[in-house]
Amino acid sequence: MLDFTTILGNVRAKAPLVHNITNYVTVNDCANILLACGGSPIMSDDEGDVEDITSICGGLNINIGTLNKNTIPSMFLAGKRANALSHPVLLDPVGAGASKLRSDTAARLVDELRLAVIRGNISEIKALAQGSSGTHGVDADEADRLNAANLDSVIAFARAFARRTNAVVAITGATDLITDGARVCTVTNGHPMMSRITGTGCMLSAMTTAFVTANPACCFEAVCTAVIAMGLCGELAHARLGAQDGNASYRNYIIDAVYHLTARQLEDGARYEMR
Amino acid sequence: MLDFTTILGNVRAKAPLVHNITNYVTVNDCANILLACGGSPIMSDDEGDVEDITSICGGLNINIGTLNKNTIPSMFLAGKRANALSHPVLLDPVGAGASKLRSDTAARLVDELRLAVIRGNISEIKALAQGSSGTHGVDADEADRLNAANLDSVIAFARAFARRTNAVVAITGATDLITDGARVCTVTNGHPMMSRITGTGCMLSAMTTAFVTANPACCFEAVCTAVIAMGLCGELAHARLGAQDGNASYRNYIIDAVYHLTARQLEDGARYEMR
Amino acid sequence: MLDFTTILGNVRAKAPLVHNITNYVTVNDCANILLACGGSPIMSDDEGDVEDITSICGGLNINIGTLNKNTIPSMFLAGKRANALSHPVLLDPVGAGASKLRSDTAARLVDELRLAVIRGNISEIKALAQGSSGTHGVDADEADRLNAANLDSVIAFARAFARRTNAVVAITGATDLITDGARVCTVTNGHPMMSRITGTGCMLSAMTTAFVTANPACCFEAVCTAVIAMGLCGELAHARLGAQDGNASYRNYIIDAVYHLTARQLEDGARYEMR
Repeated sequence: MLDFTTILGNVRAKAPLVHNITNYVTVNDCANILLACGGSPIMSDDEGDVEDITSICGGLNINIGTLNKNTIPSMFLAGKRANALSHPVLLDPVGAGASKLRSDTAARLVDELRLAVIRGNISEIKALAQGSSGTHGVDADEADRLNAANLDSVIAFARAFARRTNAVVAITGATDLITDGARVCTVTNGHPMMSRITGTGCMLSAMTTAFVTANPACCFEAVCTAVIAMGLCGELAHARLGAQDGNASYRNYIIDAVYHLTARQLEDGARYEMR
Repeated sequence: MLDFTTILGNVRAKAPLVHNITNYVTVNDCANILLACGGSPIMSDDEGDVEDITSICGGLNINIGTLNKNTIPSMFLAGKRANALSHPVLLDPVGAGASKLRSDTAARLVDELRLAVIRGNISEIKALAQGSSGTHGVDADEADRLNAANLDSVIAFARAFARRTNAVVAITGATDLITDGARVCTVTNGHPMMSRITGTGCMLSAMTTAFVTANPACCFEAVCTAVIAMGLCGELAHARLGAQDGNASYRNYIIDAVYHLTARQLEDGARYEMR
Repeated sequence: MLDFTTILGNVRAKAPLVHNITNYVTVNDCANILLACGGSPIMSDDEGDVEDITSICGGLNINIGTLNKNTIPSMFLAGKRANALSHPVLLDPVGAGASKLRSDTAARLVDELRLAVIRGNISEIKALAQGSSGTHGVDADEADRLNAANLDSVIAFARAFARRTNAVVAITGATDLITDGARVCTVTNGHPMMSRITGTGCMLSAMTTAFVTANPACCFEAVCTAVIAMGLCGELAHARLGAQDGNASYRNYIIDAVYHLTARQLEDGARYEMR
């Protein structure tokens, strides 16, 4: 059983400062969801700035969504400094498989950094683990989606990748799968409309970094809780939608729901299975 | 007559993946309006990334709103690759006329790329066509605005520019004008409050790219429909405003309205004239 | 007494065009709040672009929130051009004290440019004035916060810094303090929840630039009014929050409140003291 009271309580009580090297598409939503969950965001991506900034933070969120030749070296510099300080580092390999630069950069980050968490959709994680390519942009390929038929094989794949990287691996989609190489948690919270907003994955990565930063003794449980929290807030926000509300309002309502999220809501609404 | 059912239906059915090289001011809104209309966004602007990314997309949206020395070469690389693949390319010459770099870059993009669509306000399009300058920032000059007195001359100008560039030219403002060099469509949908939001032009360009990507056989009609859709959603969103709602809520409501937009709403609400 | 009717009226009547070199985290909110208050935004940060752009604007807002090696030289180029044209320049030293690059860049901007306004939280302004470091990310340190016990010493510090820089210095927090070196204004408008949104400081800096640009004869009063306006809109927006509204909706409501703000609301709601 996940102890939502302790895990969420730690985020709220410790207000972890999270360094984000992230894309400029969803960066504002990442900052606001970090504030909503109880954390505090700082963004910095210049080679001359990132080591100082990551040093005053508690965790580091690396998202390659709009990587470029200036920010890629910064990811390595910040990551190595965070490693030296034993800060948890999360990698969100946005679009791995969609371009050589993304695939190679993500693979090098996995090789050269000690990652606490790797979070992506199934196509991105497969590209990262297997060197495959051809994802449909930054969304998961239909062929890759987790379902009853492929669940066992995806679990085996994720476990092996988690063992190889020593990271908690979170593969998110209609069903989410989190594993530390031994334990496996599947989560079915969430709503299909979340895929109609840009950045639900990025927001989850940012929030997950806050959760693991505030809960160093139980990284796996913290990732599971963040994934459940995001899915549940997607459900709560969907229930709030009026007839004229579309994806823009939905985005706001999800962040609002994180702002008001309680351990009690998590206990009542979580749909997960430990394997 | 525009066949809204087919044109909008194609966007929803094909979910075109649109590569955006765009400014960081309105990029989140561009991504969310692409998702709202039924498309799918990907942003990438590094020289080492854009060719791969544009190759897996269906269309390319180039917006020079915050151009810089790193992203300008990427615009050409991506544009040439998109041309080679016969993907439609849209140019939004934000602030052309306001600086030499913007004017020159936009002019070079027109010269070196085969553009399917050029969309801007009247000052930007004039600057692009005539090398004039002195726009009021990124908004249209008052002196340039389309009105009954200058309509014929603006139509003649736009037609000539469309013929020279072989692009569909869309000049948007209180009255919008779209031409492929032969046909001309004027649109009077929209609401003055749309100018009190940042990025309605950028959002329209992103959405237009999705519309032309999903409707390759009728680019002109697809542009007209996107322009009408944006204006109509501006009206629908305005009707929804409560007493305390201002421009931030208005922005969300416009994207929400695109999310719910139907061909029936377009048929009932479109105000356009074919010439 | 501050003449809110004239100061706000000038912003609405003159629609000042403000050049922003700002971070990509909150840039969209800065653009929308500039439009909400009656100004007009343009963003440009490339060395080849900023001099032309700042020349057609009325004021310049420099925010170092995501400074990098490309945009730092642009800040100096734009600032010097703005100085040459006697446009007011505002500096928001985001995260000064949190990294050497931020502290050094902010200090150099203070040294090399003639600044009309410097706006930051107490930790940032102290770092800038005293070369101290170690702020908690981009938020103010608890130890630095303005309170009854340290008010006199902070006033003396702020006055001295304003005299040295010839700038109006605005230190914002639970209590805001504005000084031109002689006069001092303290403001207690605002709501604690504003710290749960990313970018309230950035938005205030952008809006303040519009206010001083439209009110060249009374820079100090314009800064005081902008600070009061932001705080009051934070209160008005908070009063509007429904049970499910969180920080995302709150952000929108603040911008909405600025959009509808009247001189009458300022007269009724302002809580300030001139010393």
